[in-house]
Amino acid sequence: MPQLRLALNQTDSCVGDLARNAGTIVHWARHAAERGAHLIAFPEMALTGYPVEDLALRPSFVDASRAALHALAGRLAAEGLGEVPVVVGYLDRCEQTLPGYGRPAGSPQNAAAVLHRGAVALTFAKHHLPNYGVFDEFRYFVPGDTLPVVRVRGVDVALAICEDLWQEGGRVPAARSAGAGLLLSVNASPYEREKHDTRLELVRKRAQEAGCTTAYLAMIGGQDELVFDGDSIVVDRDGGVIARAPQFSEGCVLVDLELPAAAPEPPSGVLDDGLRVEHAVLSADPVPPYPPELPGGQAPRLGGLEEIYTALVVGLRAYVAKNGFGSVVLGLSGGIDSALVAALACDALGAERVHAVAMPSRYSSEHSLADAAELARRTGLHFRTVPIGPMFDAYLASLAVTGLAEENLQSRLRGTILMGISNQEGHLVLAPGNKSELACGYSTLYGDSVGGYGPIKDVYKTVIFELARWRNAAAAERGQTPPIPEHTIGKPPSAELRPGQVDTDSLPDYTVLDRVLELYVDQDRGREEIVAQGFDEALVTRVLRMVDRAEYKRRQYPPGTKISAKGFGKDRRLPITNHWREGG
Amino acid sequence: MPQLRLALNQTDSCVGDLARNAGTIVHWARHAAERGAHLIAFPEMALTGYPVEDLALRPSFVDASRAALHALAGRLAAEGLGEVPVVVGYLDRCEQTLPGYGRPAGSPQNAAAVLHRGAVALTFAKHHLPNYGVFDEFRYFVPGDTLPVVRVRGVDVALAICEDLWQEGGRVPAARSAGAGLLLSVNASPYEREKHDTRLELVRKRAQEAGCTTAYLAMIGGQDELVFDGDSIVVDRDGGVIARAPQFSEGCVLVDLELPAAAPEPPSGVLDDGLRVEHAVLSADPVPPYPPELPGGQAPRLGGLEEIYTALVVGLRAYVAKNGFGSVVLGLSGGIDSALVAALACDALGAERVHAVAMPSRYSSEHSLADAAELARRTGLHFRTVPIGPMFDAYLASLAVTGLAEENLQSRLRGTILMGISNQEGHLVLAPGNKSELACGYSTLYGDSVGGYGPIKDVYKTVIFELARWRNAAAAERGQTPPIPEHTIGKPPSAELRPGQVDTDSLPDYTVLDRVLELYVDQDRGREEIVAQGFDEALVTRVLRMVDRAEYKRRQYPPGTKISAKGFGKDRRLPITNHWREGG
Repeated sequence: MPQLRLALNQTDSCVGDLARNAGTIVHWARHAAERGAHLIAFPEMALTGYPVEDLALRPSFVDASRAALHALAGRLAAEGLGEVPVVVGYLDRCEQTLPGYGRPAGSPQNAAAVLHRGAVALTFAKHHLPNYGVFDEFRYFVPGDTLPVVRVRGVDVALAICEDLWQEGGRVPAARSAGAGLLLSVNASPYEREKHDTRLELVRKRAQEAGCTTAYLAMIGGQDELVFDGDSIVVDRDGGVIARAPQFSEGCVLVDLELPAAAPEPPSGVLDDGLRVEHAVLSADPVPPYPPELPGGQAPRLGGLEEIYTALVVGLRAYVAKNGFGSVVLGLSGGIDSALVAALACDALGAERVHAVAMPSRYSSEHSLADAAELARRTGLHFRTVPIGPMFDAYLASLAVTGLAEENLQSRLRGTILMGISNQEGHLVLAPGNKSELACGYSTLYGDSVGGYGPIKDVYKTVIFELARWRNAAAAERGQTPPIPEHTIGKPPSAELRPGQVDTDSLPDYTVLDRVLELYVDQDRGREEIVAQGFDEALVTRVLRMVDRAEYKRRQYPPGTKISAKGFGKDRRLPITNHWREGG
Repeated sequence: MPQLRLALNQTDSCVGDLARNAGTIVHWARHAAERGAHLIAFPEMALTGYPVEDLALRPSFVDASRAALHALAGRLAAEGLGEVPVVVGYLDRCEQTLPGYGRPAGSPQNAAAVLHRGAVALTFAKHHLPNYGVFDEFRYFVPGDTLPVVRVRGVDVALAICEDLWQEGGRVPAARSAGAGLLLSVNASPYEREKHDTRLELVRKRAQEAGCTTAYLAMIGGQDELVFDGDSIVVDRDGGVIARAPQFSEGCVLVDLELPAAAPEPPSGVLDDGLRVEHAVLSADPVPPYPPELPGGQAPRLGGLEEIYTALVVGLRAYVAKNGFGSVVLGLSGGIDSALVAALACDALGAERVHAVAMPSRYSSEHSLADAAELARRTGLHFRTVPIGPMFDAYLASLAVTGLAEENLQSRLRGTILMGISNQEGHLVLAPGNKSELACGYSTLYGDSVGGYGPIKDVYKTVIFELARWRNAAAAERGQTPPIPEHTIGKPPSAELRPGQVDTDSLPDYTVLDRVLELYVDQDRGREEIVAQGFDEALVTRVLRMVDRAEYKRRQYPPGTKISAKGFGKDRRLPITNHWREGG
């Protein structure tokens, strides 16, 4: 059987930065070619970044993407890399589609191309378009209707893009019908807790359906609320795992495969789901036999909490860097949320790029400032204290506010201080809100919700505690100082906006709250179903009512790393004015 | 030919408020029945409100909508209205669709039902699903695959929902193939500047294609950023206009039609686009001949500026009411934007429910406070003054901020004052930003962008001036005091955050700026195309660069009434992290 050294490049892209992305592609293509790769692949829309959203509807951006693709082909050849075919995702348009209502303006396509010898040898577009969760691809793209097959060193390689593997039908059975020797799918599959298990099972199933070795190449890095966790996979036609790449890290997986030789007559005609074969012979002769040195193998998997923590670090680091910030600032209350955000920021950026501000008020307990200072000491971040008393007094002298308005005022004074420091010194403000709070609307608009990024907005409070404990334990294991003071983890959560306040004045115990929220928010269960699971009816009604009413606040919250299929962000949108009260 | 008195009810719905919406339907059904209607129609999703967005994916809400539909059928019969068929839009689910990737969870449908004699006589779902602009219906709905036809008093009435008329093919040609005597489409078509002309031409064209009289019933009212402007239309089979309802106002259009008798054999089989006829005979015998008293006629059209102004008033009024507020508060700077917002608020709610606050600083010019006070005097709104000096001094004593950070601080102090008053007194805060500012990012996060609603966020600055002049002239014509001081309209716009500041320090002249923005934002033209239209290249580059970099600010802005196909809101979404720089 012919041999093929396949290079799967788990790379990061930045939306809109065509020059940078092209540079990344050339860098890793050279890396792979130097190591003897016969076929080199990059992720879905690697050239434009993913997801491009409404940029897809801007003809000048589509033109720029197409021009960048051709320039990339030329550059690869000019740098002596033209002989090895390179598969790369980009944004294209369909020339055949007529404009009309119900078709995206300009007929953009989520496309990929095979570059070879300085030219674009073949292009194709995603056939199955996802339009759920974080995906809106029917809004942006016209589907592709071909089965692209390239003959590389005597092997017929069928190509696909992401969703083509997730949905039934289409390119997977078509690859079998075409007698492909390898099915290669390029992806930009966003991270979700425990998704890697789903992904592995999917690829194993599809390989068996396609009847050939299947390679699933995934993107890494962060883009706004999405984290791409890598985890590229190669399985054989029986579903046996040949290779599995590390999670979250950029790099090139090289694997030597033995694949069936292509039939002399190239596949043709119309196959499953009406897909028309488009075949290009890039190199008909197999590689001269060589001793396989790169058999694959599986990178170790991260544990559950480490995986989440890493996703949060990667998302935060990417957001800060890609938005051109060199540092961050956050309020440090002595509580668990801001402590975890500080630890994440130090891990993402280094403590020297993290600025923390304690902003005590007359209602702050003594331990708050002490706990904040202790975290600063342990992590080495920059720490300062700005008491809010003078501003608070100035406001109260001009404005008659009491009760909840007075509580919110304190939170907003802090938000204004952080924004002032941010504007003056150039740091990005991090918002410390968690998913439990966001769900219930337990936060102050323009107060603790101020910021450019909310690293833990998709993390339930109970998981915040678990992550804090895990991070401290991981430090202890490595003989390092645990970053988060034990007192911060142990004390009852409080906003400290009035004397003696604790979260449980307003919210149920987090262990119960989070389970109810998970059923309502993540699983879309109704009130009756939740009550039927044994929760107190009055508590369920109260929680659901809070969630039902907090859409506006959630909409105004900064973006933050998604770790679940249903966070609050681009996958979830309700009318702001909404009178449906699941909570009655 | 048989006669039919058709009742088109231009009604308002509130998303999620099934009880209220059902009440509205019963009220207007009674109104129509009392006036002798033979067929009564309500808009698309009138029972649930439109658009329901992610509520469609909540099975308990779909169940509630179905239950409410059946209860409504029973209630209409119980109130003696059961004999007249009622067409009403609601949310349903498709029982035949299998779950899977790429299909919306629970298979929801944008449906309508014909209620008759206490029962649901027939249901159907929208066939063409829009998925562009403000619409995301592929995300939420499974399409319908029938041509529904009900025989009412001897006339075959084919039914459709909104987009079924906008896209080519489907129910319009199928209605002709089925020999329908009337095509009735129920809609929730959002307002856009000058859309009514498009809509009329569309209905005329479709009537000719369908070969029968065509009725287009539209919703009125406001839902978050969308305004529904009514403007229901009935045209004959040659495209001649029979009736046209008033814009923006709730009511029932009654029209006596003469329509071809249905063939004895009901239509059946599979027609255009694979649509299967679903036919129900509700009443086979024609109405005994009666003298037609309601021949239709056309309500007068509003002028261009009056139409926009009315849309803004309707949108604001709906948002305030549907979100449970009784009053609003806004900062009054003496400038044109806040003056127009104040005038809109007084027209929407009455001056007694509008609270304005002047918040002068050391940089405010004398005329600012005078102009604000003059507007208060003219309109009669509640007016108070809170100088920001003491708070400003308290901040400067604690925080070293200068330059732009100091400018932003002043704006945030004002935002915090407005939010304090809102929290204390219960008013909704209105944000005064316009589309020109939003496009360029010329505003302060958590400062002038604070609020629950931004009434003029989709209105360019040049149009703000036109609207102010139009509103004043309209008042003068009616012998009323023009609400907006002439000095406010005449002076150069300024943020007054440093001595002598004017907008043109930072932005090009608005007459040029707005034309460039319209090309870039509304028409998605690229830099080269814009320059080719004769604009200065450096200016275009500068403007586009500002727009390219302001996505985060726009995302954090409150919702506001949309009046264009491309505002900043639910129809437009870019990645926040986006390195595509059309402006270079």
